[in-house]
Amino acid sequence: MKNLILASTSTVFGGSYLDYLLPELNTHFEKAERLVFIPFARPGGISHDLYTEKAKEAFDKLDIEVVGLHEFDNPKVALEEAEAVFTGGGNTFLLVDQLYKFDLFATLRKRIFEGLPYLGTSAGTNIAGVSMQTTNDMPIIYPPSFKTIGAVPFNINPHYLDPVSGSQHMGETRETRIAEFHQFNTLPVVGLREGSWIAVKDKTNILKGDFSARIFEAGKAPYELETGSIINFD
Amino acid sequence: MKNLILASTSTVFGGSYLDYLLPELNTHFEKAERLVFIPFARPGGISHDLYTEKAKEAFDKLDIEVVGLHEFDNPKVALEEAEAVFTGGGNTFLLVDQLYKFDLFATLRKRIFEGLPYLGTSAGTNIAGVSMQTTNDMPIIYPPSFKTIGAVPFNINPHYLDPVSGSQHMGETRETRIAEFHQFNTLPVVGLREGSWIAVKDKTNILKGDFSARIFEAGKAPYELETGSIINFD
Repeated sequence: MKNLILASTSTVFGGSYLDYLLPELNTHFEKAERLVFIPFARPGGISHDLYTEKAKEAFDKLDIEVVGLHEFDNPKVALEEAEAVFTGGGNTFLLVDQLYKFDLFATLRKRIFEGLPYLGTSAGTNIAGVSMQTTNDMPIIYPPSFKTIGAVPFNINPHYLDPVSGSQHMGETRETRIAEFHQFNTLPVVGLREGSWIAVKDKTNILKGDFSARIFEAGKAPYELETGSIINFD
Repeated sequence: MKNLILASTSTVFGGSYLDYLLPELNTHFEKAERLVFIPFARPGGISHDLYTEKAKEAFDKLDIEVVGLHEFDNPKVALEEAEAVFTGGGNTFLLVDQLYKFDLFATLRKRIFEGLPYLGTSAGTNIAGVSMQTTNDMPIIYPPSFKTIGAVPFNINPHYLDPVSGSQHMGETRETRIAEFHQFNTLPVVGLREGSWIAVKDKTNILKGDFSARIFEAGKAPYELETGSIINFD
């Protein structure tokens, strides 16, 4: 009985950290008194301690205690015993490298498939997909593999951005980059706009939030999926 | 006696392929009758043949014959014997993976340090740096390493984009991504705007084109370097 919330972003424009998700998180984590926060993605290079403080401030509002995974002597045991887990955003290469370094992927995957309530934002959402190969991040570290948790049978592109009409920039659009991914991979990709999230309940993945998602399947034209829809590629 | 042109982009807004660089390339390749084109980065998934056609059209104007590296039975020998080389843009992960697969990095590096006239655009410029770790591309393929040619003693971020004032997007800016790189790497990074290029003549690297470059050194505030300046971190 999987139970995940996979959000495109922690923070929407004009909002504060996690505020738009709090009503959803209140239900999602209702049985949890303590949450383990994985701060490894370190957005902008922030320290594990400062990043964990930020998560604490948000979860104070739900009366949930937050402990950083870096605070445990044995992070694997910490994940085995966690009531709930939240992986924050930042650099996906760094996050994945650290999870491999501490040999945590298998444990995290096992706990998620057993029903651990999980929240991911941005990079924390990316690693719930089959691979991290549709991240937007810079390869600042060389991880041992791009393979990730596979809590959902597709990949996610967080912070999905539509092509900007009238742009004079000649770098690839997000859509072009995902088309390049599909030259070598058949995995569907969900382009998740900021303010949207995927609620995973066992084998059902539902798109939630304010926006439709852009869906990319190999060999098909990209299309929109309305919020509230089940995401299903069978 | 190194001799390279490392351009941010092949095409500037409103222009055609390589047109803004043709006067510079006319001098750069004046001794070359035939150029080997490396089409491995395959922008948007274009085939090696079609991509090579595109390069041919541009170099027709300079009366230089273009042959795709994929057309040779032995690509290593082709690079050893090439009069001139041009590596086109596309996906840097794919380009680097292919260069490792055919064991071409050492040959390319040796020829470049011997004075081979080289042109890189975008991904082809990225690989002239010490590592590909400041690419903007999606990790669609897992290469054996992020290490690249090191024809210049720094890294390059092609298609450099300034933060967009008034943007409501919450994904990281380019500047933030490069700051994350500097959490783990001390290598300087040249943010090369579209329309700019670096002319490498032996040990002298000169910024050319219409724009200043944004320079990122670990532990320093980013700063602008005017076009026409020597890029030097000694």
